[in-house]
Amino acid sequence: MSWISTSFMGRKAAAKGATGAKHRLSEEDQGTFHYVYGPYAEPVLRISPGDVVEVETLDAFGGAITSEDDLPSEKLNMPFVNPQNGPIAVTGAEKGDVLAVHIHSVLPRGPQPAGTTALIPSFGALVADASLMLNPAITERVKKMDVTEEGVRFSDRITLPFEPFIGTMGISPEIEAVSSLQPDYWGGNMDLPDVAPGAVVYFPVQRQDAHFFVGDCHGRQGDGELCGVAVEIPATVVLQIDLIKDWAIPGVRLETEDFIMSVGSARPMEDAARMAYRDLVRWMVEDYGFEESEAYFLATQAGKMRVGNMVDPKYTLGASMLKKYLV
Amino acid sequence: MSWISTSFMGRKAAAKGATGAKHRLSEEDQGTFHYVYGPYAEPVLRISPGDVVEVETLDAFGGAITSEDDLPSEKLNMPFVNPQNGPIAVTGAEKGDVLAVHIHSVLPRGPQPAGTTALIPSFGALVADASLMLNPAITERVKKMDVTEEGVRFSDRITLPFEPFIGTMGISPEIEAVSSLQPDYWGGNMDLPDVAPGAVVYFPVQRQDAHFFVGDCHGRQGDGELCGVAVEIPATVVLQIDLIKDWAIPGVRLETEDFIMSVGSARPMEDAARMAYRDLVRWMVEDYGFEESEAYFLATQAGKMRVGNMVDPKYTLGASMLKKYLV
Amino acid sequence: MSWISTSFMGRKAAAKGATGAKHRLSEEDQGTFHYVYGPYAEPVLRISPGDVVEVETLDAFGGAITSEDDLPSEKLNMPFVNPQNGPIAVTGAEKGDVLAVHIHSVLPRGPQPAGTTALIPSFGALVADASLMLNPAITERVKKMDVTEEGVRFSDRITLPFEPFIGTMGISPEIEAVSSLQPDYWGGNMDLPDVAPGAVVYFPVQRQDAHFFVGDCHGRQGDGELCGVAVEIPATVVLQIDLIKDWAIPGVRLETEDFIMSVGSARPMEDAARMAYRDLVRWMVEDYGFEESEAYFLATQAGKMRVGNMVDPKYTLGASMLKKYLV
Amino acid sequence: MSWISTSFMGRKAAAKGATGAKHRLSEEDQGTFHYVYGPYAEPVLRISPGDVVEVETLDAFGGAITSEDDLPSEKLNMPFVNPQNGPIAVTGAEKGDVLAVHIHSVLPRGPQPAGTTALIPSFGALVADASLMLNPAITERVKKMDVTEEGVRFSDRITLPFEPFIGTMGISPEIEAVSSLQPDYWGGNMDLPDVAPGAVVYFPVQRQDAHFFVGDCHGRQGDGELCGVAVEIPATVVLQIDLIKDWAIPGVRLETEDFIMSVGSARPMEDAARMAYRDLVRWMVEDYGFEESEAYFLATQAGKMRVGNMVDPKYTLGASMLKKYLV
Repeated sequence: MSWISTSFMGRKAAAKGATGAKHRLSEEDQGTFHYVYGPYAEPVLRISPGDVVEVETLDAFGGAITSEDDLPSEKLNMPFVNPQNGPIAVTGAEKGDVLAVHIHSVLPRGPQPAGTTALIPSFGALVADASLMLNPAITERVKKMDVTEEGVRFSDRITLPFEPFIGTMGISPEIEAVSSLQPDYWGGNMDLPDVAPGAVVYFPVQRQDAHFFVGDCHGRQGDGELCGVAVEIPATVVLQIDLIKDWAIPGVRLETEDFIMSVGSARPMEDAARMAYRDLVRWMVEDYGFEESEAYFLATQAGKMRVGNMVDPKYTLGASMLKKYLV
Repeated sequence: MSWISTSFMGRKAAAKGATGAKHRLSEEDQGTFHYVYGPYAEPVLRISPGDVVEVETLDAFGGAITSEDDLPSEKLNMPFVNPQNGPIAVTGAEKGDVLAVHIHSVLPRGPQPAGTTALIPSFGALVADASLMLNPAITERVKKMDVTEEGVRFSDRITLPFEPFIGTMGISPEIEAVSSLQPDYWGGNMDLPDVAPGAVVYFPVQRQDAHFFVGDCHGRQGDGELCGVAVEIPATVVLQIDLIKDWAIPGVRLETEDFIMSVGSARPMEDAARMAYRDLVRWMVEDYGFEESEAYFLATQAGKMRVGNMVDPKYTLGASMLKKYLV
Repeated sequence: MSWISTSFMGRKAAAKGATGAKHRLSEEDQGTFHYVYGPYAEPVLRISPGDVVEVETLDAFGGAITSEDDLPSEKLNMPFVNPQNGPIAVTGAEKGDVLAVHIHSVLPRGPQPAGTTALIPSFGALVADASLMLNPAITERVKKMDVTEEGVRFSDRITLPFEPFIGTMGISPEIEAVSSLQPDYWGGNMDLPDVAPGAVVYFPVQRQDAHFFVGDCHGRQGDGELCGVAVEIPATVVLQIDLIKDWAIPGVRLETEDFIMSVGSARPMEDAARMAYRDLVRWMVEDYGFEESEAYFLATQAGKMRVGNMVDPKYTLGASMLKKYLV
Repeated sequence: MSWISTSFMGRKAAAKGATGAKHRLSEEDQGTFHYVYGPYAEPVLRISPGDVVEVETLDAFGGAITSEDDLPSEKLNMPFVNPQNGPIAVTGAEKGDVLAVHIHSVLPRGPQPAGTTALIPSFGALVADASLMLNPAITERVKKMDVTEEGVRFSDRITLPFEPFIGTMGISPEIEAVSSLQPDYWGGNMDLPDVAPGAVVYFPVQRQDAHFFVGDCHGRQGDGELCGVAVEIPATVVLQIDLIKDWAIPGVRLETEDFIMSVGSARPMEDAARMAYRDLVRWMVEDYGFEESEAYFLATQAGKMRVGNMVDPKYTLGASMLKKYLV
């Protein structure tokens, strides 16, 4: 029996992990992609809690970077980057509920080289932002990589493991419509490698029917997404989406067979780290019965911190605790 | 044959990993402990490159917290916390050299419960600093734990793995004498769990004979040292100290059998993260022959980031790359 | 002759300071107030460049705090705070243009005490945010003050000068709809005391007809808006709105008879400060003929920095230079 | 009668503003200058509370930059920059006391052009730090300026007011010896233009006889010291130094005839701002009888914030309140 039956989704959600109808949202079905997470777009699909959705996502550049000779500064048209599928309406979801999303698979699609990374002027963790600094720009560069289930072919000498995940996923804010480049309490562009096949991600619903978005898959990524561009791939994503009624969580949470994780997105980075650990302590108190100072001590001695991104409008970090210590 | 022979220490240092004389620096030998990393104290021991030193360290409280009824605010006398052994003079070390320190072992000493953690007012990552905020203080609390090679007995239900490391270690700045609570390019209070048995740590020498300090061992610690107090233990530490001439490194680096790591200490946290990754890129370029943008791309797709501490006067993060990709 | 004729508005805008039609946007005309700056709301008024608009704004609480016995945590319904008038469509405005807004007057309206400030849990620069920290909350408190043109009656002993300004003003982003609590390159909740009667404020138009919003007036405020709540007043605001074609500015700029100011909104605060000064240097180079390093030197020796707010989702600072040095 | 008689110095200090012996500390008397604020140097002069000292300071470069053709990267020898006079021992000063320093005058000395500013690679608020970023460096440049009591001759067209102040001043930490480039609770390199003739500056004594240092005078400076180098001048400084017993202050405070100011030095910049305002609120409560929330409200509505420096190892900001509101 899968660990899912013991997860918060398996125990608390409407479908309790049982599989509902299957839906497909192809690139053609989507038609117009979205560049904001917000309540102002019409749903492209309606599902019930427990349903499974297969989605064809574009890469973060909307496929505009087709060769290593392309210059992002010429090919990209801000703010129309990081295209998103959705919104998907989840019947019955209301503010105060939690959307539980179990990621079944993330696979590359389209012709090789399927993966793209790039140095983009004024962008990236080790690059001076021209709106802040006077230095000359770095040299723009695109790198294309074959990406298959066997690996990411970084160079002739180096093949990295295929460890795919979803860079951008979440639900609509209540009244805001925010760039798909930004992560926040609703999810969005978290660029957190733990948002990967096998994990269940929990989002705090802000409006009727939740309005779920997804896009921006990565063939893999190091901690921090240093240059700001992971191994960007068009992908086929399979997700099961379920609904937990009346679970008040302040932001994104995540669960695997082995650990629970709270996610924080903020600037400066220490505030993202605090937000993640603060919520992990709250979760340990509310759902595992720890006294608060004891949870704080255990997080101090056994907590793990993942740096998701250090490049987006807000940085995203995840604080986690092994389930074996939550006893 | 040990991987050490292939390390920077094994290949470049004076003794090339061969074991020199053995020294012992007991608590009694040390006599007066130090609370700053600086050039103004007389060496307590002089060694040659390649020598092995066994050091008896005090815990970060100098042993002042003896029971769970003690209040840190009453028992501690600032700035006299985090006592350090040393300085140890390393003959022949000069500014521009690198001190290579191979950590052989870190073992708890003294009566049980050997381990201490605590909530200290105005201190810790989730606690308002009274010099910045108006909120009422949190409740002070001490927790004592048995610490043996079998584990850290966190509570009746939870025993955590014994994964000891050295919280504070480094060399004297050239003219500054800085609190042993602060980490910086010279090492100091990094609270980075990778500074553990098996690792080799590299420090950029700033003055004649280096003047090495060590103290503040931890039975284990989570990422970030959340409440600011790890499993603090008095310990017996065994180190081999060697010398690499004419290696210009801007700050602390670290090496294990599997990876290399650059360490950054700064505020805000993103600057510590940038500093660590910036130096990792430099290291990949200078010693592994990567073109700079290629190193930047590889760090983006395969770099790992460890959050050492998020509580000290500067935060410490380590950026690492697996050696198997450095080809 | 007014200095306005020598301003960027007077020299470059469509109406060149000549007064066009007069419009009134009363509380009743507005009807539904807005809580986001975005392109998804229908204009409530259409004007031509050079027109003058009188607007009746609500206070930041939408009038919900009527006595010192009210608790903000009970009376406010997030995210429905900081109500905004608008959007006002400005015919002919296009992306790449600049909206020039000359503030004629800001006067309190409604019964006394017209002014409100408050300590709100988890909010304010010296208060721990419960999503980041574990400390007990501070005590909630409301303070009401009479606000007239004669002064702000802070207490029996202290009357502060009436120095009114507009806390929140700006134009719609292109595709985002962002909380009126947030400042950014489009303006929004800058809480910058220089946005006051007499000043001309420049906004970079992002969409057809600009879609201008305004609200959140303050009877006065110290630097930084420390507790997060200024002397909040319902007000009658008179503005002249003009249009400068084809002026590429990266964010908000401001001009008075004596100085020019560039505004930066970001976190951490040093990034807001850099953004403001970086743009001031750019402005000095592009419009006053300074060589870049000379502009940087002059800003170093004679620049002024105003801390607008240190409490909102982004902090806002303004960097200014006296016009008498721009020769 | 001078306002000094009503100041904290005039009311509480040992000499109560009465003038004691006069001392002179010439460049030759000083002999060896210091590059750290610390307790390990022998006093060069001993004075009694109330005494007046005339000090000849060097500029921040120790006079090494003599022409616009000099390159700082070639002429400067880190960490030997920002030379300091002192330490001056103040008889009777003990930890827990406050040193009160009334600045009588700051005048340029030496041949013209007496003033120097510079663009230094990897330094300055709008310049990428090579230890953090990959961008190419900016072009190094030195600018020399005539500095007299009539003004700072910035260029043929621009003469700026002579508004001299002391960039670096303070007392020794208890056990640390910290670079004179760093500001902190002991003073040091605050680069705060309010530390000017007429002001009284208060420092929390950390050790026997205080050990006072001073240097690094500026002919003038804008807010933030943007490029990191003000109008650096060698100067003759006249100070009266007095002693207030048993006044516990957490950091530097300052007083003029018109206002009181608390100074914060920290990173990120919002922490410096919070530290300054937090102490201002404390001061208003402890010495002016305000209820805490009332002080917080008044600081919100009438506080002023000066950005001293945004370039040093810690940023320095000063929060102030007009005395006329402290009633």
